[in-house]
Amino acid sequence: MFLDAPSVERLIEAFRKLPGVGKRSAERYALHLLSAPEEDALFLSEAVRTARERVTTCSICCDLTETDPCALCTASDRDRSTICVVERPAAVMAIEKGGTYRGVYHVLHGALSPLDGIGPDELTVGRLMKRIEAGGVSEVIVATNATAEGEATALYLSRQIGERGIAVSRIAHGVPMGGGLEYADDVTLSHALQGRTRL
Amino acid sequence: MFLDAPSVERLIEAFRKLPGVGKRSAERYALHLLSAPEEDALFLSEAVRTARERVTTCSICCDLTETDPCALCTASDRDRSTICVVERPAAVMAIEKGGTYRGVYHVLHGALSPLDGIGPDELTVGRLMKRIEAGGVSEVIVATNATAEGEATALYLSRQIGERGIAVSRIAHGVPMGGGLEYADDVTLSHALQGRTRL
Repeated sequence: MFLDAPSVERLIEAFRKLPGVGKRSAERYALHLLSAPEEDALFLSEAVRTARERVTTCSICCDLTETDPCALCTASDRDRSTICVVERPAAVMAIEKGGTYRGVYHVLHGALSPLDGIGPDELTVGRLMKRIEAGGVSEVIVATNATAEGEATALYLSRQIGERGIAVSRIAHGVPMGGGLEYADDVTLSHALQGRTRL
Repeated sequence: MFLDAPSVERLIEAFRKLPGVGKRSAERYALHLLSAPEEDALFLSEAVRTARERVTTCSICCDLTETDPCALCTASDRDRSTICVVERPAAVMAIEKGGTYRGVYHVLHGALSPLDGIGPDELTVGRLMKRIEAGGVSEVIVATNATAEGEATALYLSRQIGERGIAVSRIAHGVPMGGGLEYADDVTLSHALQGRTRL
């Protein structure tokens, strides 16, 4: 079938651009959509187009949203004096699932990575500083990823924000809940020991 | 973001309908498409729509194709006296990648499964029988999957086609090439022993 169906080849190519999707999965998705009911295929096509059309970034927190400012920034029950800084919209989703955080967010849309040409200007750092300078912020929690880039970004932000006399904290790194010590890697374990808290 | 972006929820839902895609992967794909360049997202949307519009089933072999009859059925260098019967278009793709088979195909679009209400009339069995009755076919190779349904379909076809005095064969089942015996499951091993060939 691949001999005389260039549209299927293009579809496979499109799926391969998704994160973590290899040749096999892309072929499986493409063949599924071709044998699935037509409305299922058109539903996906429309969902992609509609989401791209409707979704924009919030002018306050830079998270993805359909309404600007976003629901979290305008919610009456959120504490606007605490800003949690994350790399990606997915992190907001993950923290909100926990359901315990009551502050607001700021999405950087990446992390500092000088080798890849990503400096503060490529991220939404400037807008974060403006939010802080506008006043009313008492703490900034840096929840960037536990990678070299995420740590570098946390260090950079802590310096920039610390200069303005505002408390900056970093989320704890350690052994995940439910995880046995024997399964944790040594870097995580050394972080867990350094970050010990008194009982 | 999921609080005020129903279009993102719909996009995640659409991805979850793909085979083997769970909640996490669907979220990852959706967030990727929202932060990827707009043309990448629209490329996927268009690829799905275009493939559905252009791809049809071949009136001879029932495989997916953009031209009817398909390139394999019209190719001058294929042996039309041998038909390889498969469940899905993906199997045609897999066998063609091997590059050694020179006959033609017939795609059933499934396997017999009485419990799911799938009998011969739900598959393309009738069209296969008409191809055989039209003459010129000397062998039918049944390459349905090595599952209960695939085996039942093979048995059914071998009876139906055998009655018409045409050779019916089943592809060999055994230890995969490059695979150690110790990694093969016992059903595969017993098939491999039963299907032994003289050296």
